[in-house]
Amino acid sequence: MAYIGTGVEYALHCLLWLVAPLEQRPSSRDLAEIQGVPPAFVAKIFPKLEKAGIVEASGGIRGGYRLARAPEDISVLDVVDAVEGRKALFDCQEVRGRCALFDNKPPKWANRGVCGIHAVMLHAEKVLRDELAKTSLASLTAGVLGKGIPSGFMSEVQTWFADRQAAREDARIVGMRSRSTTREDA
Amino acid sequence: MAYIGTGVEYALHCLLWLVAPLEQRPSSRDLAEIQGVPPAFVAKIFPKLEKAGIVEASGGIRGGYRLARAPEDISVLDVVDAVEGRKALFDCQEVRGRCALFDNKPPKWANRGVCGIHAVMLHAEKVLRDELAKTSLASLTAGVLGKGIPSGFMSEVQTWFADRQAAREDARIVGMRSRSTTREDA
Repeated sequence: MAYIGTGVEYALHCLLWLVAPLEQRPSSRDLAEIQGVPPAFVAKIFPKLEKAGIVEASGGIRGGYRLARAPEDISVLDVVDAVEGRKALFDCQEVRGRCALFDNKPPKWANRGVCGIHAVMLHAEKVLRDELAKTSLASLTAGVLGKGIPSGFMSEVQTWFADRQAAREDARIVGMRSRSTTREDA
Repeated sequence: MAYIGTGVEYALHCLLWLVAPLEQRPSSRDLAEIQGVPPAFVAKIFPKLEKAGIVEASGGIRGGYRLARAPEDISVLDVVDAVEGRKALFDCQEVRGRCALFDNKPPKWANRGVCGIHAVMLHAEKVLRDELAKTSLASLTAGVLGKGIPSGFMSEVQTWFADRQAAREDARIVGMRSRSTTREDA
């Protein structure tokens, strides 16, 4: 399995739809469906993004998600850590102290400081994290827009989300009428 | 599971015993046992290191492993790749083309160039690999020696490996005599 998994991939793609201000607050299902990724998986990811302060949610029929801070202030690293937790590149087991010559009593010099192998891995992890911290949702979006998205595309997106919200509201009204009819019938 | 696993940790620790020239060629069991790591696991790792040109093996009772090239020319990255194969940091699934608005026919602009998210991950992977390539077995050893190993330690190590080889030779002679006796008895 890759170090940075599918959850991060889905989260980043879904979050990009929230970068340009929308009139609606899409649900996680809306975001999953516009992106063509599994809604049940995305529904589990968004509470993690909310907990990490990347999105904020509001409830109710018009409720849904929006970014909790400016897209310039949300890095790829923030999303990786939110979705996967802070996971180590390397899990040092302090093998150095186990040398047969130490006879189960490693001398002080053997365990002095951080193990040299662990230190290399920790430094590599820092370099990796620093790199992932350099790219924000804003810069990712600028890159996508730079690919030549047609001028009308973003208004199509807006319409798609508006239609979804309208459909939810209609479904709710129908649901209320149906419940009310059921009560009258009863 | 960590991205860089236990196999790499064991491999690096065992390889460090081969950096200072030894009179013997230790077996993978010798290396595992002096380091206090599981011999069966290490026995599976060394053929990978041999295939990658990091160690070379010779057979026979005095056979075993030595580094196949100078420790300055064997990087931590070489060992990671040898043990784990070249594994991706991120496995892009080309999610960008699945947008619901494309109706299963993504326009050319949508798939132009590398996906922006994938590009960030590829760059981070390159930075990580470049970092792991900077440290060699020689520099790792210099770091360990810098921790103040007592002057007599390396000759103890030499004696330990020599005793192991002598024990193997004795066992072989006993085995030969025993087979020969069995034949005479038969």
